[in-house]
Amino acid sequence: MPELRRDLVSGRWVVIATERAKRPESFSKAIDEEQKEDHTCPFCYGNEHLTPPEVMAYRDGSSRDTSGWQVRVVPNKYPAFTFNEEVHNDDFEIYSMREGIGTHEVIISSPSHHNSLALLAPEEAALVISAYRDRYVALKEDERIKFILLIVNHGKTAGASLEHPHSQLFAIPTVPQLIQEELKGSAKFYKDTGQCVFCKIVGYELKRGIRIIEETERFVAFAPYASRIPFEVWIAPKNHEPRFEAISEEEIREFAQLLQGVLYRFYIGLGDPPYNYYLHTLPCRGVTSRVGDLEQIYHWHLEILPKLSVIAGFELGTNIMINVTRPEDTVEFLRSVSNYQRRNL
Amino acid sequence: MPELRRDLVSGRWVVIATERAKRPESFSKAIDEEQKEDHTCPFCYGNEHLTPPEVMAYRDGSSRDTSGWQVRVVPNKYPAFTFNEEVHNDDFEIYSMREGIGTHEVIISSPSHHNSLALLAPEEAALVISAYRDRYVALKEDERIKFILLIVNHGKTAGASLEHPHSQLFAIPTVPQLIQEELKGSAKFYKDTGQCVFCKIVGYELKRGIRIIEETERFVAFAPYASRIPFEVWIAPKNHEPRFEAISEEEIREFAQLLQGVLYRFYIGLGDPPYNYYLHTLPCRGVTSRVGDLEQIYHWHLEILPKLSVIAGFELGTNIMINVTRPEDTVEFLRSVSNYQRRNL
Repeated sequence: MPELRRDLVSGRWVVIATERAKRPESFSKAIDEEQKEDHTCPFCYGNEHLTPPEVMAYRDGSSRDTSGWQVRVVPNKYPAFTFNEEVHNDDFEIYSMREGIGTHEVIISSPSHHNSLALLAPEEAALVISAYRDRYVALKEDERIKFILLIVNHGKTAGASLEHPHSQLFAIPTVPQLIQEELKGSAKFYKDTGQCVFCKIVGYELKRGIRIIEETERFVAFAPYASRIPFEVWIAPKNHEPRFEAISEEEIREFAQLLQGVLYRFYIGLGDPPYNYYLHTLPCRGVTSRVGDLEQIYHWHLEILPKLSVIAGFELGTNIMINVTRPEDTVEFLRSVSNYQRRNL
Repeated sequence: MPELRRDLVSGRWVVIATERAKRPESFSKAIDEEQKEDHTCPFCYGNEHLTPPEVMAYRDGSSRDTSGWQVRVVPNKYPAFTFNEEVHNDDFEIYSMREGIGTHEVIISSPSHHNSLALLAPEEAALVISAYRDRYVALKEDERIKFILLIVNHGKTAGASLEHPHSQLFAIPTVPQLIQEELKGSAKFYKDTGQCVFCKIVGYELKRGIRIIEETERFVAFAPYASRIPFEVWIAPKNHEPRFEAISEEEIREFAQLLQGVLYRFYIGLGDPPYNYYLHTLPCRGVTSRVGDLEQIYHWHLEILPKLSVIAGFELGTNIMINVTRPEDTVEFLRSVSNYQRRNL
């Protein structure tokens, strides 16, 4: 069972994920092991028996755990969070431990082993986002779950352990510190101005234009003013939308199109770089605000972080990032990358 | 001039370091560029003219900016912080920008291009720590400086851009969020118990023993209970010491010995892994506590983070780390690595 351990100084929680435990001695040859190519991909058609039984799939009539699916969702084989009948928490003399209650799923983007999200057909990409929404809606009913995070790790150096394109969903028993900070900052802005801070940013950026990469009728992709790393991009709804799971079918298509547009610009302009993205939305439960209705204060969005620089000692020791590029310059570059090829794939 | 930009949602500051700016298009071949070996090392004897003029060096009689030094301190050629006569801050319609006032220095460990801290003679390692203390004491007098951070990035994947072993010092105009959180947590613990939280942890760990790697009379190296990554190690004074810069000559020798002991265990046991370390100590100025005297509440320490795993989407999106090893297991492994070879180098 994974453990959540609390640091006594900072109060931060850490997951000790024993289910995916590595022996300490294995680290001295970690690099060698990573280079071994696994020739049997558990996410490809015909290998459905290599994953735990699926929790959901989009299929046209084929049977569970066989091929013929468009998107397939399975539990992570080495989960960082699991459900357990008996919960066993410990407080030692000075430390606190909680069990890592929750669930950790893998959303396999498509049967294609090589086509990442940037290269899927628009209707395939939209299905991935539909799967995000459907699993979110199914899991949020569980009273033990406070927050659900959807992420992608693309490329080995961004943490992808399997090459076949996939996303991950974490349903967890705590509201992460980072989300609490965003909520606190958003609540303060709302208290000071009576406005949603994300609506304000989106409106300002659309007016200024210098940090906009691409937009659709309902969504905008832009580089945040205080970008932490080169080519950081946020995608947000233009209108006030606190909860991702309320996304409509039409919005799913548009959001997928814009996400593909950004990822395709990375693919062409930067040579398929590694990246991480994660979706921030209002917690399922476990938070309130004295300032007002949380639905008024917060606004869901996706943050995309290409892995083109190293988080080093200064960043680790301060939590202040040093970015060697101006976001206005990276936007200019991304805009110059033509979308022509994509339209004609 | 570097810019500090503030994120409107979270309140976090980011440094846009234009002095080391990269053109956006350079990122598409970033990996190729990194592999180019620079054959002229600016930190080796005879190349002193390739760095900015030194700000300090330990020498036996040789002249400034010539060879013959034991430790040499120079300004970083591409500083993330600089002093400027005129300070120019901006508040745009919704955003805040401050100039990156401060200083960014490089502490060259020794004339040896290949011997990292783990492999230096004990008296050479002690000189590196003396240089930390001497530069800290010199810079803390400046009223504009609120915090001074000492770090090492060892190995390319940990962010070292030059191979020749060196440390870096950042003297900055703000107390970083991470330090504020540690101070807040420490103040809360002090309020609740009347004790320094680090003294409590050190005492508990010494009593339990299972997370201790090595100790000397006055210092202890241990894996924190809530270790964020495999092989995380903290080194702290056993007695209550709020400020690093108060370290005595005798303590410098002992601290350097223990630091070398840990780094040598990494070197032998893990095959010279990349790592980052940073030193956390009480800010020079700019903080107060309602709970009591900050000198009673906080305790300096060094945090060492080997880079053997990837910070991926979950960690970036939550600030909760997933660690695939139990610190108790990594300690057992590090203890089993003999120090025999070092003693006989």
